[in-house]
Amino acid sequence: MIKYPGGAVYKPATKKVKITSASASNRGMSLEHDLNLSNNHYNDAGIALITKRPTPINVVKVDYTKGARITDAYFEKQSTTDYNGIYKGRYLDMEAKSTLSKNSFPLSNIYEHQFHHLRQVTAQGGLALFIIRFTSLNETYLIEARHIIEVKTSGNRRSVPLQLIRQHGVRIEVGYAPRIDYLKALDEILARR
Amino acid sequence: MIKYPGGAVYKPATKKVKITSASASNRGMSLEHDLNLSNNHYNDAGIALITKRPTPINVVKVDYTKGARITDAYFEKQSTTDYNGIYKGRYLDMEAKSTLSKNSFPLSNIYEHQFHHLRQVTAQGGLALFIIRFTSLNETYLIEARHIIEVKTSGNRRSVPLQLIRQHGVRIEVGYAPRIDYLKALDEILARR
Repeated sequence: MIKYPGGAVYKPATKKVKITSASASNRGMSLEHDLNLSNNHYNDAGIALITKRPTPINVVKVDYTKGARITDAYFEKQSTTDYNGIYKGRYLDMEAKSTLSKNSFPLSNIYEHQFHHLRQVTAQGGLALFIIRFTSLNETYLIEARHIIEVKTSGNRRSVPLQLIRQHGVRIEVGYAPRIDYLKALDEILARR
Repeated sequence: MIKYPGGAVYKPATKKVKITSASASNRGMSLEHDLNLSNNHYNDAGIALITKRPTPINVVKVDYTKGARITDAYFEKQSTTDYNGIYKGRYLDMEAKSTLSKNSFPLSNIYEHQFHHLRQVTAQGGLALFIIRFTSLNETYLIEARHIIEVKTSGNRRSVPLQLIRQHGVRIEVGYAPRIDYLKALDEILARR
């Protein structure tokens, strides 16, 4: 602790200290942000080409007097998934979700349409994946969609236990570039097959 | 010609007559509409899973008092292409464009970013394609992106001659389901390789 002449005590700005801490800054970053950084890295390095689908928006009114400014619109549900692309010549399709839960991933996070889409991806021979982040635990997993779909199809559960995700999925390492190395986790999953 | 009592002459509404003509209604349909119908057919029939990327929109202001209504936003340039997906286990990426020109396809229709994206798709072993419709001729072609990129790279031309597109591409048949059978055209292109 630093004491100034006159007895005043220097208190470091709590917020600033938190930001310089690596683990805290990890928690502060959103999963989407991490994925965008990682995908940029993969693309730049020629490792893969995976892009985020834009959020679907239904445009109601456009003001052309202001250079095509949208003045009325609303968000639509994503009928597919957030990410798709190509890795090692294979088609890849994935949905990324965060949960505050500490012991399971609620199935209500995934729309019926998205389950249907991921089933179709699998039927076409593509890689259908989920990236699931347990924000409170600071743990992120890559898991094949079929494991989540199995729990959904069984109809007995409203959420996927973390234990099941740990068993069938692979924990994603957090680093600098790529921010989250989910393709390394995918390599592990493919090697298991 | 029908003559009414009193000498008035019945004139059929030109617009109505045009709509009932099959060829005219074909011309009236947009390429995007045709592709959406075709992709729905392919997906439903389990032939392929190809989806349109939503138009990217930059949201500036959202009114949450009205249930997340967007009150200010603008269209962004598409940095990738309009369509991607999986066919016969392969990653496919394509851009679809119409032109009113009768003898060439202007390269100004394609953004620099899109060329870059399609080059990356090819480098990753994916199928990079263009669908080009000559609206005035009512002719639609599927062509591998590399042929268009070659003309672009040569730097001598500002447009791709229709003759070159006819030589390297395959004309897409127009029908009912699928509306435009571009995957049949793709099979021909793949057989040539």
